Amino acid sequence: MRVVLVHTSHPGNIGASARAMYTMGLNRLALVAPAKFPHPDADAMATGAIGVLSSATVVPTLEEALAGCVLAIGLSARPRAFAGRVMSIREASLEAVGRAGHGDVALVFGTEMSGLSNEELAQCGIAATIPANPDYSSLNVAAAVQLAAYELRMAAGLRDVWRAPRFAAATHDDVESLVAHAQRTLTDIGFLDPQRPRRLMPRLRRLFGRAGLEREEVNILRGMLARIDELLGRGGR
Amino acid sequence: MRVVLVHTSHPGNIGASARAMYTMGLNRLALVAPAKFPHPDADAMATGAIGVLSSATVVPTLEEALAGCVLAIGLSARPRAFAGRVMSIREASLEAVGRAGHGDVALVFGTEMSGLSNEELAQCGIAATIPANPDYSSLNVAAAVQLAAYELRMAAGLRDVWRAPRFAAATHDDVESLVAHAQRTLTDIGFLDPQRPRRLMPRLRRLFGRAGLEREEVNILRGMLARIDELLGRGGR
Repeated sequence: MRVVLVHTSHPGNIGASARAMYTMGLNRLALVAPAKFPHPDADAMATGAIGVLSSATVVPTLEEALAGCVLAIGLSARPRAFAGRVMSIREASLEAVGRAGHGDVALVFGTEMSGLSNEELAQCGIAATIPANPDYSSLNVAAAVQLAAYELRMAAGLRDVWRAPRFAAATHDDVESLVAHAQRTLTDIGFLDPQRPRRLMPRLRRLFGRAGLEREEVNILRGMLARIDELLGRGGR
Repeated sequence: MRVVLVHTSHPGNIGASARAMYTMGLNRLALVAPAKFPHPDADAMATGAIGVLSSATVVPTLEEALAGCVLAIGLSARPRAFAGRVMSIREASLEAVGRAGHGDVALVFGTEMSGLSNEELAQCGIAATIPANPDYSSLNVAAAVQLAAYELRMAAGLRDVWRAPRFAAATHDDVESLVAHAQRTLTDIGFLDPQRPRRLMPRLRRLFGRAGLEREEVNILRGMLARIDELLGRGGR
């Protein structure tokens, strides 16, 4: 997978794009006739992805940047006449992952001001677009690289995220014991009137059910009830 | 839906976040004790989303920024002990859209250097994380805002993208006529030997089938064949 930036004006955007790529595991960057590169602004924005910049290739034409690719996907926010297929970046990413087994796939991004020209987009087999606010669809180029690289990563199935430690879930009888305990104690403190129980216990059950209680939480709640029992002089029950 | 940026150091990141939000149709921004705001760098990076900055609220604590929210989703790249639920930003976005009917939902982003503190994340019901390169998972804060806002937009079903004009598809009999014409002409020019046809016609059928021919394309291809017929003095066939 390679990322191609065409005629980028601001070197800071090149650096930010390199960082965006690398956070999603991409590292092959080709620059078509950038206005200024290398440049300190590019290095500053790349932060930990400086290696992507130092291995970037600079070529004079898009044709050279795409040499050897089996598929080029051009990003375009603007609707236009286009002979190839047009799809969302999510759909295009699935297509890209499918084709990547056959050879290089390129993601192509145009200039900050106007994106890819019609002639540049015509060199791409797919035009991909990012669903956006119709009143303001102008993503920063590095932001577009970030989104596209993220969708590629998701499409490739690299979706691992950190997970919190798992706690033991309370069992049905843990929760039933808690409900029974609560019913006794709430009666003892005069909050629940057994003659006119209203909907108190069903509401508590509903809350506990929705929360998906953990065993440790049941123990904490029963501890609170036991302390109240104790204050009432009924700890021995 | 509101976006909350906590203790942001660089005003440029606030502006870039505003732009990222607005491209995805979000416009309510709350800033918790930003280092510098308002600031010309913020305005410069916001470009067409300057209205998001001018209506942003600045508050001293995260608690105030979250007042009235029914759900807060904190972004965190770092694994840590967390009492709430942890999920990917795609999953969290579905959850956010489901809850948005009940009241405000907040997306919370921490500082550039270290993200949200444990105490800040504890104020969030969900910790959301962006699948990323395990060797370098440090997204720029505005890039993270862009991704999260995009996933929210996708989860809300706002997936419209521009489509190229639709052309009439060729019918089965259009394609059959083309294949028959090609077979005649290729025989006439001596490229196809009817005695030893090899796999030429099946390969052409396969190519046409995969291409999903349009009617106009069939006409163009038949026009080419007719011109060859003409040159052979067989235009009348």
